[in-house]
Amino acid sequence: MNSTESFTMRTLKLGLIYSSLIFNVFIVYKYLDGSHLVDEKWSKSAAGEAEAVAAVSCSGHGRAYLDGIIGGDGTPVCECNACFTGLDCFESVPECVLDADSGNPIYLEPFWMKHAASTAIVVSGWHRMGYEYDDGSLISQELRSEIFKLHDIVKNVNTTDRYIIFGAGSTQLLGAAVHSLSLKSSTPTKVVASVPYYPVYKSQTELLDSTKYKFTGDASIQNTSDSSTSFIEFVTSPNNPDGQLKKAVLKGSNKIHDLAYYWPHYSPIVSPVDEDIAIFTLSKLTGHAGSRFGWALIKDKDLYQRMVKYMDLNTYGVSRETQLRALKLLKHVVRGGGQELFEFGYGTMKHRWELLSKTLQASKRFSVQHLSSQYCTFLDKHRTPSPAFAWIKCEQEEDEECSKVVLGEAKVIGRAGSLFGAGNDYVRVSLADSQDHFNILLNHIEKLVSQEKIGSGTRFHFYNTANQTWHANYQFMGLDQDIQCSFDGSSFAHHQGAATIAAT
Amino acid sequence: MNSTESFTMRTLKLGLIYSSLIFNVFIVYKYLDGSHLVDEKWSKSAAGEAEAVAAVSCSGHGRAYLDGIIGGDGTPVCECNACFTGLDCFESVPECVLDADSGNPIYLEPFWMKHAASTAIVVSGWHRMGYEYDDGSLISQELRSEIFKLHDIVKNVNTTDRYIIFGAGSTQLLGAAVHSLSLKSSTPTKVVASVPYYPVYKSQTELLDSTKYKFTGDASIQNTSDSSTSFIEFVTSPNNPDGQLKKAVLKGSNKIHDLAYYWPHYSPIVSPVDEDIAIFTLSKLTGHAGSRFGWALIKDKDLYQRMVKYMDLNTYGVSRETQLRALKLLKHVVRGGGQELFEFGYGTMKHRWELLSKTLQASKRFSVQHLSSQYCTFLDKHRTPSPAFAWIKCEQEEDEECSKVVLGEAKVIGRAGSLFGAGNDYVRVSLADSQDHFNILLNHIEKLVSQEKIGSGTRFHFYNTANQTWHANYQFMGLDQDIQCSFDGSSFAHHQGAATIAAT
Repeated sequence: MNSTESFTMRTLKLGLIYSSLIFNVFIVYKYLDGSHLVDEKWSKSAAGEAEAVAAVSCSGHGRAYLDGIIGGDGTPVCECNACFTGLDCFESVPECVLDADSGNPIYLEPFWMKHAASTAIVVSGWHRMGYEYDDGSLISQELRSEIFKLHDIVKNVNTTDRYIIFGAGSTQLLGAAVHSLSLKSSTPTKVVASVPYYPVYKSQTELLDSTKYKFTGDASIQNTSDSSTSFIEFVTSPNNPDGQLKKAVLKGSNKIHDLAYYWPHYSPIVSPVDEDIAIFTLSKLTGHAGSRFGWALIKDKDLYQRMVKYMDLNTYGVSRETQLRALKLLKHVVRGGGQELFEFGYGTMKHRWELLSKTLQASKRFSVQHLSSQYCTFLDKHRTPSPAFAWIKCEQEEDEECSKVVLGEAKVIGRAGSLFGAGNDYVRVSLADSQDHFNILLNHIEKLVSQEKIGSGTRFHFYNTANQTWHANYQFMGLDQDIQCSFDGSSFAHHQGAATIAAT
Repeated sequence: MNSTESFTMRTLKLGLIYSSLIFNVFIVYKYLDGSHLVDEKWSKSAAGEAEAVAAVSCSGHGRAYLDGIIGGDGTPVCECNACFTGLDCFESVPECVLDADSGNPIYLEPFWMKHAASTAIVVSGWHRMGYEYDDGSLISQELRSEIFKLHDIVKNVNTTDRYIIFGAGSTQLLGAAVHSLSLKSSTPTKVVASVPYYPVYKSQTELLDSTKYKFTGDASIQNTSDSSTSFIEFVTSPNNPDGQLKKAVLKGSNKIHDLAYYWPHYSPIVSPVDEDIAIFTLSKLTGHAGSRFGWALIKDKDLYQRMVKYMDLNTYGVSRETQLRALKLLKHVVRGGGQELFEFGYGTMKHRWELLSKTLQASKRFSVQHLSSQYCTFLDKHRTPSPAFAWIKCEQEEDEECSKVVLGEAKVIGRAGSLFGAGNDYVRVSLADSQDHFNILLNHIEKLVSQEKIGSGTRFHFYNTANQTWHANYQFMGLDQDIQCSFDGSSFAHHQGAATIAAT
């Protein structure tokens, strides 16, 4: 700065210095007074906690939760996917046995992680403390509204003139429906379902041991000629375990339609179900099985009121946190006409079904359910079902207990067919868990199938010619296989032999 | 700045300008890159929504919720306290009838609003989607741990060697306990409770209509000489509706101890309850009735396992959102040894009980339960109970149905005594709702009592002396009263008269 600076320049510099100083003071003030600089006030601490937990790295093979067990470093521990372990889920469990018994819908987790910003909720300490909503009911009107919007989009059920009731999962609603239907009848009601059926129908009905109803078993073998006996028939469509679309078997029965899987993720939407009782669950729609949220659409007002009474006395409704969360998730689903979720769900399940069913097609020892293509109104095209479960059958007589075969030889825990009222030559295995889980499942099933036979035309060369047992290593279906063979000297050439070998 | 400025000064100025500029650029960069300046990323939008709803003004007579019905301005509407109305809850409902039937624990709401920052939770879209926790159970270990800490502080129950099970409110656990206890017995079990009892014991047991148990009524009139009959006795302590500490009546019965109100808010803690089944609910501890969360402490392993099975088949556990929220709330309670919550709770209930019982003491027509002072180990002093309900008795024969009297003459809806197995000369009225609710309740009860008599010695001066009817306006107990009296010429002086007048 020399003495010949113009007045303008000097003013400019002074202005710069002073305004800069003022600006700095202002910024520092605003920064210290957090309430102005950031939007969150009381939610800030909670937001920070949740963000920190979400950022915990579990090597892509697990995740941490806000309420997880606190580890040595004071933060919640990683909870690992199947067959992964270690503090950060990096290590594979050696000789891992894969539990594919439960239908845990974790395949949808990546979808919600991707849409983190629009699917989080902040629950204040004083959120909905009261027993009822403002209208005196136990049901969120906004959530009710969102559910009806969703059904309007997917057209999987007729909602016209329907009453709606919420439950803690479809689990609670199934029991409420059986109970409430049975009150109408003066004689004990027989509760039935066609085989194979979802095991909970039987175990739940038996537990309650009511004077008014009894689980009687397979719907297709019931004698309906006695008009004094009333029936309640569970119609599960798509069916659990085999994914088939189904209709009622008995004429004149009270029907409970369990439509847990009647969404584009798993099934063509062929037409809107138009029945007396239609039950859905968030577990299979969004994957939030832990939230315990389901709903039933009821035609008859009397029946609806009886179910409301049952819900009142059983649990006095569904928690307010759960209803708030379901609202947020379903708002996200409905936005954009449901396309995002259903594309993700269908895309994932379709791919998995193709891979697994193709693997099992190569097998003579095992078969899997055949599912026909049908026209889907939602996707506006023909498509095959993409079920959440493989309903595997052991075709060979000596494989009497299929679940034991699959466990012993493939290290996969499935659910035995007898639990579904079917034979133990069947086993149900879940395709709906995490990607890690499915990868391991596929790998184990591929190995299992590959052990069946090496296939005609596969040639091996051996250098031993004496009567003895030897081992060979070969590749089948891209997997290393070890076999042990006996040579009785008659079937092979002396020196270098080539033979077709069947597994022992 | 003149030309004789020293080098130092010029350097200082240059330094000031440049560092200021650098600082400004840095600050602007940080401000624009929100992720650095603010902690929230994906939770930001959810936090903003929640904060905005919390800031909705409802004139101090209500509040808005995140999932409230959306009003014309696109934000959730105000949900008003009893007898308030209008878009912002500013208007009083004329001739309002106050619903004091339900035990909605809204008196605790201000406590949670005050502790907003440490009691909010952010629930991510992928929080705990699976059916089970990492250990395969349906129970959060962290929450379990917090509950045991709380009981260690309050010493209201013995938790040593106890199994714990969660339920959707104590509602679900009561039913689970009855069911599971009855499975042990080969003969139908009689379910009893001493009068007056909480109505749900009867209605819930009757609804389930099991072959294994029946609600039989008043425990104190049961014939226990038949050893083939087993009993299940509900012991509610403090009792609902009358707040009395109670013990079992029947010897040899299976006992279910319902300890919903056994907290310092309502009762002296005289000793830790040491029984087979002890049931608690979040509803009465923190006031979160809408969350549907309770827990049972069980001594016997077999019974515990039967209750777990019941919970599995009824609802498959309690929602993950609810357990996360309960954990956050209880962590806050436990911090600081529970002092804050219990001081607030006890302080509020004590004050309300004093005001209401004092009002009713002035009455000959109505009485309220007498509650004795006892030593409280938690507060380390003698104290009277401060119950959530007034158990009002109509003392006059002509007031046959006390709930109708209180409704018709005080415009207060209470719950009739017959629902509690008692006579209809009783009515239960809640003291546990919002401050607005209690103010109105007190006001209505005061008016009701004031109408009984003007009291001896109250003197009025009249200027009419002819035989006629006239009206007088006076103040009794601080309230304006209008009365109509007849004068037959014999009891009053001619001109200015003064008389003791009884209400007609």
